[in-house]
Amino acid sequence: MFTLPQKDFSAPTTCLGPACMQDLGSSHGDDLEGECSRKLDQKLPELPGVGDSAMLSPDTSYLSSRGRMIKWFWDSAEEGYRTYHMDEYDENKNPSGIINLGVSENKLCFDLLSWRLSQSDMQRVEPSLLQYADWRGHLFLREEVAKFLSFYCKSPAPLRPENVVVLNGGASLFSALATVLCEAGEAFLIPTPYYGAITQHVCLYGNVRLACVYLDSEVRVLASQVEPGRACGQEFPESGLRVVHGVKVKGLILINPQNPLGDIYSPEELQEYLVFAKRHKLHVIVDEVYMLSVFEESVGYRSVLSLERLPDPQRTHVMWATSKDFGMSGLRFGTLYTENQDVATAVASLCRYHGLSGLVQYQMAQLLRDRDWINQVYLPENHARLKAAHTYVSEELRALGIPFLSRGAGFFIWVDLRKYLPKATFEEEMLLWRRFLDNKVLLSFGKAFECKEPGWFRFVFSDQAHRLCLGMQRVRQVLAGKSQVAEDPPPSQSQEPSDQCR
Amino acid sequence: MFTLPQKDFSAPTTCLGPACMQDLGSSHGDDLEGECSRKLDQKLPELPGVGDSAMLSPDTSYLSSRGRMIKWFWDSAEEGYRTYHMDEYDENKNPSGIINLGVSENKLCFDLLSWRLSQSDMQRVEPSLLQYADWRGHLFLREEVAKFLSFYCKSPAPLRPENVVVLNGGASLFSALATVLCEAGEAFLIPTPYYGAITQHVCLYGNVRLACVYLDSEVRVLASQVEPGRACGQEFPESGLRVVHGVKVKGLILINPQNPLGDIYSPEELQEYLVFAKRHKLHVIVDEVYMLSVFEESVGYRSVLSLERLPDPQRTHVMWATSKDFGMSGLRFGTLYTENQDVATAVASLCRYHGLSGLVQYQMAQLLRDRDWINQVYLPENHARLKAAHTYVSEELRALGIPFLSRGAGFFIWVDLRKYLPKATFEEEMLLWRRFLDNKVLLSFGKAFECKEPGWFRFVFSDQAHRLCLGMQRVRQVLAGKSQVAEDPPPSQSQEPSDQCR
Repeated sequence: MFTLPQKDFSAPTTCLGPACMQDLGSSHGDDLEGECSRKLDQKLPELPGVGDSAMLSPDTSYLSSRGRMIKWFWDSAEEGYRTYHMDEYDENKNPSGIINLGVSENKLCFDLLSWRLSQSDMQRVEPSLLQYADWRGHLFLREEVAKFLSFYCKSPAPLRPENVVVLNGGASLFSALATVLCEAGEAFLIPTPYYGAITQHVCLYGNVRLACVYLDSEVRVLASQVEPGRACGQEFPESGLRVVHGVKVKGLILINPQNPLGDIYSPEELQEYLVFAKRHKLHVIVDEVYMLSVFEESVGYRSVLSLERLPDPQRTHVMWATSKDFGMSGLRFGTLYTENQDVATAVASLCRYHGLSGLVQYQMAQLLRDRDWINQVYLPENHARLKAAHTYVSEELRALGIPFLSRGAGFFIWVDLRKYLPKATFEEEMLLWRRFLDNKVLLSFGKAFECKEPGWFRFVFSDQAHRLCLGMQRVRQVLAGKSQVAEDPPPSQSQEPSDQCR
Repeated sequence: MFTLPQKDFSAPTTCLGPACMQDLGSSHGDDLEGECSRKLDQKLPELPGVGDSAMLSPDTSYLSSRGRMIKWFWDSAEEGYRTYHMDEYDENKNPSGIINLGVSENKLCFDLLSWRLSQSDMQRVEPSLLQYADWRGHLFLREEVAKFLSFYCKSPAPLRPENVVVLNGGASLFSALATVLCEAGEAFLIPTPYYGAITQHVCLYGNVRLACVYLDSEVRVLASQVEPGRACGQEFPESGLRVVHGVKVKGLILINPQNPLGDIYSPEELQEYLVFAKRHKLHVIVDEVYMLSVFEESVGYRSVLSLERLPDPQRTHVMWATSKDFGMSGLRFGTLYTENQDVATAVASLCRYHGLSGLVQYQMAQLLRDRDWINQVYLPENHARLKAAHTYVSEELRALGIPFLSRGAGFFIWVDLRKYLPKATFEEEMLLWRRFLDNKVLLSFGKAFECKEPGWFRFVFSDQAHRLCLGMQRVRQVLAGKSQVAEDPPPSQSQEPSDQCR
């Protein structure tokens, strides 16, 4: 996927605010239907910003400047999410409400999870669970996490509880790692497009930036049918890597399986990244929160913890959580695995602010140790449901002649709607996104992932069939309206669920 | 307790590292038995530090400088706590283990709490509880918090759910408020001695300092018996308040009931503080985590939310949690109440990193709404048990002729062991503390609360009778050894529980 050459590279250019995204992406042509591989930007990486001053709310004397920046993220980034929450679709109570295909949650297995979490073995209340405990997490839980990761990551040797720190989710772990690994103002490299919330996670408390390494888009034609494309190579700049436009780079973030692309790194690619990082004394944070959501066995996912030998184990830090793989983003459980005891201790010290209830720690230990239920019930059923939902959306997209990346992992499809933009600008991308929202379907637009080309969207497919069907119907309506009369309002029948979606 | 004069004050002096504590406190005399009121320091406030560079672990190339500071807090501040956890007292399994009278937890009511949390109404598992929710907290919980605080704080008008933000504990709330109210390097004023962990909470992420306003010690003799003393006045400097040695002061932290003194602020004192803060445009964070742990009704506790009118409601932010009042520090539930929507939103934005499980949110809503159980079972029983434990420790201290502050609130007694120090230094205080720990009883020493006089200790009394009895027996042994042969090791029989403590 990536190539990591030894050769020198021209000095990278950077930009420091979201405004830098405004004038990009005007170069896409009409070569979508042919095989292509275009370098979008030789000048990399870029540093996505955190809101320039003009975008912040007017000065109030009550908040610090960073307080205003933190509030700005709430006010702006979560607009679609809050609009959705004010008008959530409900089959009975609010059939014309918004269908959420934007937030990456797995809504396919609540029946299984509710059953498991309601069993009597989950209900223990003991004094030790109600008292202060080791901020790294209760030992009984860290032991279960070590066993769980040893098994599912297929580690060559058993993983150890002392290398485990548990906390209330992956977001907190990004915040803590950024703070203890970087000085304020330093940066992590990240292959881009990437899960955009990481920008906030490393910045809001830690004041750490992300330096984007852009991926190219590539679409292939197989037979006479438009087939999924593939994100492909972008080279890392070797010279000048440690300092990008005055910003020191301290590490590299890898998301595997990748969000939003769904890509899987092969062991060879992983190894290449790790060797590259070691050469530059970069930390590597490997985010594996979708590792058990690989529903196509053929893709051959391998956790970084399965490698026979890590090139630089003291700088390799792995994160996992139950938010995605167990469809419980509201439960707030995540974990770090690192052999570096300084890093584990420093993160644990911050866990005063990221602690999770002793009662939940007990429940998570019960869940993770129930290998029978996970292997025989939950994972097979979850994967079958994810695959069916993915197949449905893929077929819908193919029927519309829309290119997309088809992967066998994650909850989302990276969809190329560039041909529906009258002009290749992020303003047009935003207009199209609003048209979807006005037609009561929430999607995520590419700019939220720092995608460089306007017109890409992430479709989340891990939802119940009737909602997925209705959501895709509303998408079709917008795209049909768009291709026919660009400025027309969406058809009114879109406000009601269709019979075929029940 | 405090007087807040209008007159100008000489420019305050400050110190910026823990080293500033080393040469203090050498002025205490032997006037303990007489009524006294000594100004310990006219030069205030001081800024307790966060570890000077010499105290940090040797440079490792893996952590940032702030990462090393964060790790230093773990390595040093929690020494006693971790020693305790490696050798916890257990009546059956480890009778010679350490008795913990150092950590402020209420261990008197686990029977009541376990029963309540095990009831069937606590066990609901719904999809909405497992999904991402409003980072301010589920609305159903914020509604219950508003009703709960309205009732128990005796607010003149109903409090409103939109002013409530819930998160995983008071520590997180200090971290979030410090970050959104202050720039890095700014400070809060705090009456001192104070609950020392706040130093970390405002600093580790927020890089905010505390400016100490020292309280005097005063001990009175009533009849021929040493009676509890009283912390008394220290004046705030009015001029130059906003900038202390180049550090800008942004607010004031009040803990009510106070930790470690147990003091209660009268409505008049509260009002005086609030007016003072308004005059200087200072935020006031009022930490009321012990508000339902006032076990002597006669002390007449009043929440700041009971005041008819807040002088500056936009700068008044109230915190409460279940850690203390419901004896569940391991459950991780806290809440902010503020009328300032900018502050509430900015804190909510940081709650991505301080979120608590939807399942726990549901349980907390069930608990807080059960007014019958709280009023008729939990609070009366909890207060009776706290009072009995307090009485026991008070009588032990009186029998030893040891002065202490007797309050009717909180879990601790502020004890004056100055006469047991051969020299009035913090080194001697630490030696005495280690002697207690060696004799298997964990206490908190005054320096941990930034107390200016060496020799004060905080005794936590909210524990089961047999542990309390054994703990006090071990304290007596150390003090007896100390007064007889200062350097003697503790008697070996202290390793076994006494029959009278069962």
